[in-house]
Amino acid sequence: MSVATIWVVDAYGCDPDALRSVAKLARVFDDVVRDVGLHPLGEPRFEVFPGEGGVTGYVLLSESHLAVHTYPEHAYAAFDLHCCRDDAEWGWAEGLRRALGAGRVEVRRFVRGAALAPRISVGDAT
Amino acid sequence: MSVATIWVVDAYGCDPDALRSVAKLARVFDDVVRDVGLHPLGEPRFEVFPGEGGVTGYVLLSESHLAVHTYPEHAYAAFDLHCCRDDAEWGWAEGLRRALGAGRVEVRRFVRGAALAPRISVGDAT
Repeated sequence: MSVATIWVVDAYGCDPDALRSVAKLARVFDDVVRDVGLHPLGEPRFEVFPGEGGVTGYVLLSESHLAVHTYPEHAYAAFDLHCCRDDAEWGWAEGLRRALGAGRVEVRRFVRGAALAPRISVGDAT
Repeated sequence: MSVATIWVVDAYGCDPDALRSVAKLARVFDDVVRDVGLHPLGEPRFEVFPGEGGVTGYVLLSESHLAVHTYPEHAYAAFDLHCCRDDAEWGWAEGLRRALGAGRVEVRRFVRGAALAPRISVGDAT
């Protein structure tokens, strides 16, 4: 068994201006949350780095978290979706192409807690 | 080249009470931040799930983020360290054994943005 899954998403060839836009990144968060049916614990937090820097953002979910870190100088964004549901698929390639102009999107998926032994029901020995 | 690394840490066999303790988890965050030389953007945020539930927490960093999700019912905790430095090694096994009683700790490390082409300096064509 496992307890969660992490989706590790690398988006290349994005529009650098979009990668500096909290509004555009917040909309990606909203779209993922709505489409996957996730439950935020409060509002996302975004930090904008100065000058030509990017944005980092994070939202806690009942299901774990969604994070983004952008690097406009590389036209690159990293998203992480850590989720206690294993069916939290989203159309990252199409969604990030539309929202950020991404040219290439790689999605890797890793199971968390895979080494947990199955819980076996046993009688009470006392 | 790459722009960041994510350390994906699974800790098994932890003390369930420690996995419900914000104080103990905050101390792990503090230890990682201090030992690795990271720079928090504000205070960590922790949410405690009701009843026998666990804790979810994160801290934004200049270097990206550090997150935890605990599952006391499985004696299991998941940590993610997403960092723009590739030398952000921490002694997860020993640190989580000491802090949370972890019996087994698995650390996986993944490079982010690996497909970025090296930036080549070229003359100005104009």
